[in-house]
Amino acid sequence: MKLLRFGPVGSEKPGMLDSDGQVRDLSAHVADFAGDAVSLEALDKLRAIDPASLPVVAEPGRIGACLASVPNFFCIGLNYAKHAAETGAEPPKEPIIFSKATSALSGPNDAVVIPRNSVKGDWEVELGVVIGKAASYVSEADALSYVAGYCVINDVSERSFQAERGGQWIKGKSAPTFGPTGPWLVTADEVADPQNLKVSLDLNGETVQDSDTSDMIFTVAEIISYMSQFMLLQPGDIIATGTPSGVGLGMKPQRFLRPGDEMVVRVEGLGEQRQTTVAAD
Amino acid sequence: MKLLRFGPVGSEKPGMLDSDGQVRDLSAHVADFAGDAVSLEALDKLRAIDPASLPVVAEPGRIGACLASVPNFFCIGLNYAKHAAETGAEPPKEPIIFSKATSALSGPNDAVVIPRNSVKGDWEVELGVVIGKAASYVSEADALSYVAGYCVINDVSERSFQAERGGQWIKGKSAPTFGPTGPWLVTADEVADPQNLKVSLDLNGETVQDSDTSDMIFTVAEIISYMSQFMLLQPGDIIATGTPSGVGLGMKPQRFLRPGDEMVVRVEGLGEQRQTTVAAD
Repeated sequence: MKLLRFGPVGSEKPGMLDSDGQVRDLSAHVADFAGDAVSLEALDKLRAIDPASLPVVAEPGRIGACLASVPNFFCIGLNYAKHAAETGAEPPKEPIIFSKATSALSGPNDAVVIPRNSVKGDWEVELGVVIGKAASYVSEADALSYVAGYCVINDVSERSFQAERGGQWIKGKSAPTFGPTGPWLVTADEVADPQNLKVSLDLNGETVQDSDTSDMIFTVAEIISYMSQFMLLQPGDIIATGTPSGVGLGMKPQRFLRPGDEMVVRVEGLGEQRQTTVAAD
Repeated sequence: MKLLRFGPVGSEKPGMLDSDGQVRDLSAHVADFAGDAVSLEALDKLRAIDPASLPVVAEPGRIGACLASVPNFFCIGLNYAKHAAETGAEPPKEPIIFSKATSALSGPNDAVVIPRNSVKGDWEVELGVVIGKAASYVSEADALSYVAGYCVINDVSERSFQAERGGQWIKGKSAPTFGPTGPWLVTADEVADPQNLKVSLDLNGETVQDSDTSDMIFTVAEIISYMSQFMLLQPGDIIATGTPSGVGLGMKPQRFLRPGDEMVVRVEGLGEQRQTTVAAD
């Protein structure tokens, strides 16, 4: 299934894409895609519904983030070797875990707002993983059975906030609209191999990131198993699994987001995002 | 008001403490203390209720965390000068922000589970701040008007996970039960000055942390104003505002949690927590 949320910010409805690419309204069956509503069990119930029985949404309008009220918006740092090199870091020996404020979550085509005092806004296309079952101390062999689905994420970052203001990365990862997520939550059964997906990002028509999830240092299964040694992962948690090379920080000369820039963000099979950047009020 | 949640894990009910110290059942008025249910407006509605009109809960049993489904569990690092010194760090020039997985949240008297492979479990009494109104770019002068209330937090930490496993602190802050929160959410009107509260932690009957929030490097108002430059704070967000000196990491010799240890955690006017540590299964 390709699940999505449509409608104005804050009053999105849940829907699914049918085989003709039309949006069907799921709001009679689920209040919203949040927490336990994306558990493996809940998704099985949705799968049992005949899409043809659902109302067609002729004009869905805006597409929201494919999840609401996420319990956690986790990220993995430096998970592609060439990206680690471009930032000047050694490839990590163990996954680097950090998080974004959950209020960073935004729709795939919403404007990305450059915060006040930002000078180094940057882009990061990533494969997003959504947890579907409580995961604690799970083995790598079992890890993928805890996945509800996958989605496109742009882990928008402010490098000066992230690295030059003291402390931890969360400071540069958390501004509102820094987490475009979706358009769809594509359920795990439709993704044959999460380590064989092309990922790319175009900036103003130029392809700046162009890689494949086969280049990840730590696979999705390794990441889930590893994280579950340190914390309980819960249904609805998002994990952004790291970005390949080609971010602005790694360019010579460095290049950062300015108002009016356009990003097109793709992960193979998971859809496409398109954001324009604007300055904060 | 002193608001609390009582009952078994996962099925807590909301309640309030009356002036006789009895628990009164609020579940006819609010589903749970989560997100917008602790907004300033929602709290004003609860304040209008005559506690005597609410059912007395003769045997509340277990006390849960005073909040459910927190959008974010933020923390401030090294916010007392003597604590920064005992960890070997310089006092920060700007607040250090990090987060715990929200699944770390637990009741004030629940057992603290020492995770598998943990060797350096540690304690951290902290003043917790709960946000009551969406906060973005707020001034220091206005910041306290965004506070719903205050609570006791033990920011339980695993120092080897935090500092010796690569990357960011979240790895050592996020295990289940690493976030005892409560017993009460004490609304802001009952806390005359958040910078004048005694904070202490006893380990096995010995007072190991004993300080005052007047010793914070960054005040609650400064923290909220600062964070709101980088992210949108939302109703129900928790901010643990840092711990004073006296953690196990700073002792000579160092001392870490073992199964059977007892912690008593207090912040003046906000109640008391009591946890026993147990080993993970």
